[in-house]
Amino acid sequence: MIGEYPSAALERAVNAFASLPGIGRRTALRLVLHLLSRPESEVREFGSVLETLKEDIRYCKICHNISDTDVCPICSGPKRDSSTVCVVENVQDVMAIENTMQYKGVYHVLGGVISPMNGVGPSDLQIDGLVERVRAGGIKEVILALSPTMEGDTTNFFISKRLSDTGVRLSVIARGVAVGNNLEYADEVSLGRSIVDRTPFV
Amino acid sequence: MIGEYPSAALERAVNAFASLPGIGRRTALRLVLHLLSRPESEVREFGSVLETLKEDIRYCKICHNISDTDVCPICSGPKRDSSTVCVVENVQDVMAIENTMQYKGVYHVLGGVISPMNGVGPSDLQIDGLVERVRAGGIKEVILALSPTMEGDTTNFFISKRLSDTGVRLSVIARGVAVGNNLEYADEVSLGRSIVDRTPFV
Repeated sequence: MIGEYPSAALERAVNAFASLPGIGRRTALRLVLHLLSRPESEVREFGSVLETLKEDIRYCKICHNISDTDVCPICSGPKRDSSTVCVVENVQDVMAIENTMQYKGVYHVLGGVISPMNGVGPSDLQIDGLVERVRAGGIKEVILALSPTMEGDTTNFFISKRLSDTGVRLSVIARGVAVGNNLEYADEVSLGRSIVDRTPFV
Repeated sequence: MIGEYPSAALERAVNAFASLPGIGRRTALRLVLHLLSRPESEVREFGSVLETLKEDIRYCKICHNISDTDVCPICSGPKRDSSTVCVVENVQDVMAIENTMQYKGVYHVLGGVISPMNGVGPSDLQIDGLVERVRAGGIKEVILALSPTMEGDTTNFFISKRLSDTGVRLSVIARGVAVGNNLEYADEVSLGRSIVDRTPFV
């Protein structure tokens, strides 16, 4: 446990960092003292970047991914297949899937998953936007790529209901044993899914 | 591995956080996205606190601890024994010792320890200041409370040399088995020290 701070300015900075997820007061203090050991210009820059963060960050008006432009490079990419939309939870997921180099379609960032426990309902997510996109036409397939969790599955189900009358093809990313993992270390659920959802051996 | 960021503003913020010790790019991204989910005013406040951090933070001109005033509350505290000076590495150590409620003397914050590996020499620390304080008189005992590491021991030795002709009483914090720990779990060195440095049983 940490006692009284020798300075109000120090305490303000520690409180700011300690408000971030996964950063306790002890770590926050370490971070602040690190910044104090850095050149003034660097710390100033850090501060100003955060100060204008919310204005500087904008979102693609089509897929709601973070973007510097009204329409993000992926949505406006000539090489992307705009008839396939991959529904993801957040920006990290888009970056992770882009990293695989396996996907050439476009995305739709929900901004989370339905989670009554955390007070997140369908209206808090970009689900209406997704339905509008599909109704607007030109979309053949919607791939649900949410986390394989209770919340993710609930959200998948909710979205499928909302899209049921659009006639769009709905798919969900494959669940099974992780590539490169020893079978004995796979959990029963994933292993079970991998057998039920087995694919033809080519 | 994280791929390309969808926005330059996002990347700037991630780079800022990733420059902090113990925070990788993945964690940095998570922190930035958390801030994006917070109210604008809160993020703005965070930024402005850091922007002026270096000016806002001042140091006690006697003990070099972080302080809002020229002389910190400890150095100017009427109840503190200014004839005993405890030499510590940094602000955290002062807070840790204050937490014990066992110390009524004052401090001297070195700002680190001698560490050739990290390019930290005696001149980078507040050692001259300490010698001056002792020479100025009124100090009976100097307690060396640096980390029980190679660097700490080197610094202790260097300080003792510098103070040898001042006639001030030098002591070092006790090293031995941690209170509440089972003997069998104590490392040999600490256990050895605890036997050599045994104290009379009262």
